[in-house]
Amino acid sequence: MQVITTVQDMLALRASWTQTGRLSPARTQNRARRAHEAPQVGLVPTMGYLHEGHLSLVRQARAENDILTTSIFVNPTQFGPHEDLARYPRDLPRDLRLLEECGVDVVFTPTPDDMYPPGFVTYVEPTGPLVTMAEGASRPGHFRGVATIVLKLFQIIRPEQAYFGQKDAQQVAVIERMIADLHLPISLRTHPTMRETDGLAMSSRNAYLQPDVRAASTVLYQALLAGQATFENSPATGPAGVVQAMQDTVAGEPRARLDYAEVRDPVTFLPLNTLRSPALLLIAATLGNTRLIDNFLLRADGTWETGKTRE
Amino acid sequence: MQVITTVQDMLALRASWTQTGRLSPARTQNRARRAHEAPQVGLVPTMGYLHEGHLSLVRQARAENDILTTSIFVNPTQFGPHEDLARYPRDLPRDLRLLEECGVDVVFTPTPDDMYPPGFVTYVEPTGPLVTMAEGASRPGHFRGVATIVLKLFQIIRPEQAYFGQKDAQQVAVIERMIADLHLPISLRTHPTMRETDGLAMSSRNAYLQPDVRAASTVLYQALLAGQATFENSPATGPAGVVQAMQDTVAGEPRARLDYAEVRDPVTFLPLNTLRSPALLLIAATLGNTRLIDNFLLRADGTWETGKTRE
Repeated sequence: MQVITTVQDMLALRASWTQTGRLSPARTQNRARRAHEAPQVGLVPTMGYLHEGHLSLVRQARAENDILTTSIFVNPTQFGPHEDLARYPRDLPRDLRLLEECGVDVVFTPTPDDMYPPGFVTYVEPTGPLVTMAEGASRPGHFRGVATIVLKLFQIIRPEQAYFGQKDAQQVAVIERMIADLHLPISLRTHPTMRETDGLAMSSRNAYLQPDVRAASTVLYQALLAGQATFENSPATGPAGVVQAMQDTVAGEPRARLDYAEVRDPVTFLPLNTLRSPALLLIAATLGNTRLIDNFLLRADGTWETGKTRE
Repeated sequence: MQVITTVQDMLALRASWTQTGRLSPARTQNRARRAHEAPQVGLVPTMGYLHEGHLSLVRQARAENDILTTSIFVNPTQFGPHEDLARYPRDLPRDLRLLEECGVDVVFTPTPDDMYPPGFVTYVEPTGPLVTMAEGASRPGHFRGVATIVLKLFQIIRPEQAYFGQKDAQQVAVIERMIADLHLPISLRTHPTMRETDGLAMSSRNAYLQPDVRAASTVLYQALLAGQATFENSPATGPAGVVQAMQDTVAGEPRARLDYAEVRDPVTFLPLNTLRSPALLLIAATLGNTRLIDNFLLRADGTWETGKTRE
C-alpha cells in the first residue's frame, strides 16, 4: 500500500495508471480485464478516524475496482466557523493499518495547505433546496465545502467509481446532482448505514459521546423506527404524522435536543406533500455537545433501507 | 467536419477518441505522435458569430492538436437579466463554413435545455476580487456563468489544451485560477486581441454598432494608448495618473459613456499601488446601446501585449 501525501505526487501516480498495461505497483484485483485497457480506479473519500461504516465501503470498492484509492482529509471548507474542525478525531496510524488490511492500493493524505493554497478562490456551489434544507439549513456552506473537495479529489484521482455512505443521505444527493450537472464521468456507489448493536449509526463523531449520553444517543434510531411505523401503519396522517412521531420520540429523551425531523424527497430534498415512495426520513439531534444525524430511505420500489447492524 | 448537437453524442464521440489508435473519423494533424498514444485534443469554446479573433485562436489550436473541437453555445448563465442574451448575434451556417475552412474536426453546438436541464443546480463559483472587480462589478454573476459552462465543456470534451482570447483578460484569469484550484488537467492557451485597422478590438458585439457610433468606438483603444504612454513616460503619476489619462480620453468623446478604466494585477485583479509589471490596463465603455471592453497587458518581462491589427 502506497501512502501519497502531496497533490503533485498523486497526480503523477494517477497519470502512470493510464499508461497502457502499467498496473504495477498497484495491485489489481480484476484480472479478467483485458491487458490493453486502462485499469478501473475506485475512490473512497473519507475524513479518517475510520469505523465499520467506512470499512464496509472500502471492502465493496475493493471488490469492484482494479486500483483502489482511499483519501483521508479533514476538509476545512465543509466545517462552519463554530463547528468541530479543530477537535475532529484523528488516528492516522490506525487508519492506515485498517486500510492495508482491506487491500487498499493507495491512501491519499494531503495537507490543507496543499489542497487550499494561498489564492484559492474557486468553489463548487450547489444551490436550491438541496443545500438550503435539512443539513444545509443547519450548516450553511457545508455542502459548498463538500462539493468542492469532492470535485477536487475527483479531478486528482479520476476514479471511475466513487463510494459514499448512505448515512450522509443529503451528501449523496448533492454529489449525485453535481456529477450529473457537471457531466463528471463517474459512477456514485452507496453502501447502507452501519449501526452499533443498539442501533446507533456509526460515525467518527460518536467518539465525542460521553458515557451518560451514549445510551441516550439511540434515540435517533428509535425516532426513525417510530416514523417508519407511522409511515407504514397510519399513512393517512401524512408527512406531518410521521414527523410528529419522530419528534415525540426525541421529546421523550431529556438528554437529546432535536435539530430537525423531516420527510423529504431523496433526490430533490423538497418536502413531501403526501406519503409516497421514494422518501427519506431524516433526523438530526444534539446529545451533550455532539450533533448526530441519521436517516431511513424508502426506495422507489417500496422497500426500506434502514442500515445494517453490527453482528 | 462533424457537427455534434447533443451532450450525449459528444460524450460518446469523446469516449471513442480514448480507444487506442482510433483517431478516425476525426482528422489528425500531428502524425508524429506515436500510434498507441491517445490523441491530443484541443478546444476553442465560443459563443459563435465568429470573427477574426476567434479564427486566429482556431488556427493556433489547429496547429497544436491532433483533434480540434470548437464549441458554439450562447451560454445563458453568463448573461445578466438585463443584458443582451435574446439579441446576441447568431449565424450558424456562416460559422460552420468558417470553421470547416480552418480544418476543425468537430463543432459542438448543444442547446440550452441540454446543457441546463430541469433540476440543474450546481455552479462553479469563483470568489474574491477576481470576480467582484471590473467586469465582475459591472456584471454580477457573469463569471459564475463563465466558469460553470467552461468546466462543463471541459468535462464533456476533455481537452488537453483550451484556447481563450486575451481580449477577455478577466475571463482568462478566472479560468486559469479555476484550472489551478480544481486541478483540471488542461493547459490554457491565449491569443492576442485582434483589432480592426482603426484599432477597435474585434468582438461579436461590434455588430450592434450603428455607423454613427462605430467611428467613435475607437476611443477605447485610444484611451489604452494614452494610458500606456502615461505608464511609460510619467511613471511618477502612479496608477491614478494612468487611469486619469484613460478617463480624459473617453471624456473627449461625447458618444462614449465610461464604465471603468483601471490598472490591475493580471492574475489577482487586485488594484496596483505602484506602476510595475505585470499590469493590466482595462477599459469598459458604452457606445450607443453597446457595451465594449478592451485591455493592454504589460507582461512580467516588461513587454506590452496590445493586440494585433488586421492587415
